[in-house]
Amino acid sequence: MASPEDIAKAFQVHYYQTFDQNRAALQPLYQDNAILSFEGQKFQGHAAIIGKLTSLPFQKVQHHISSTDAQPSLSNGLIVFVTGQLLIEGETNPLKFSQVFHLAAAGGSFIITNDIFRLNYA
Amino acid sequence: MASPEDIAKAFQVHYYQTFDQNRAALQPLYQDNAILSFEGQKFQGHAAIIGKLTSLPFQKVQHHISSTDAQPSLSNGLIVFVTGQLLIEGETNPLKFSQVFHLAAAGGSFIITNDIFRLNYA
Repeated sequence: MASPEDIAKAFQVHYYQTFDQNRAALQPLYQDNAILSFEGQKFQGHAAIIGKLTSLPFQKVQHHISSTDAQPSLSNGLIVFVTGQLLIEGETNPLKFSQVFHLAAAGGSFIITNDIFRLNYA
Repeated sequence: MASPEDIAKAFQVHYYQTFDQNRAALQPLYQDNAILSFEGQKFQGHAAIIGKLTSLPFQKVQHHISSTDAQPSLSNGLIVFVTGQLLIEGETNPLKFSQVFHLAAAGGSFIITNDIFRLNYA
């Protein structure tokens, strides 16, 4: 059986590759009632979440991951905690970010129920 | 009923005040089988967690909180995500950190089941 770290790593690679290539394609990764907190703003439901993510004011973005932590949660889910850097088109300096996901087991795979994103300002 | 944000704020104030004053007193805040990931190292059980926290090589520390996010989780718990700065004795520059807690409801209060801590290096 895959370890929490293995699952978290596979999730993280898939999530950020999809984010950087086509944010709209992230929708099936979110549960219908998932919650996103993005820089303190809350969005509930995968449509609202994708609406927010696709309206972010940049076309090109690259995530560079510094750390990925994973722990099992009480609901047989997985808490995934990522830190890294965002490189946005036109910006010379990468922005540091940290992000936590709570994943629920769903038919042999995992789906996002909670997503909290913060930039770590200097 | 208190909102997730109200609970998270009260928890956060209590947690970091206790951390900064007397780390050993954090033990009752952790569930018996809680997990801590500290800069990638894992500790399971509240005794192991307090062993790690009390052995950190500084006597005086101050947490300054920049943001606190909160979301309900599937298990009727609460995910609390904190970013801020650590001021450690003898250091001239604060260190940025981010930390996620998963709290479980426990007899009218909340107890930590998951704790993941990362410094955000420059």
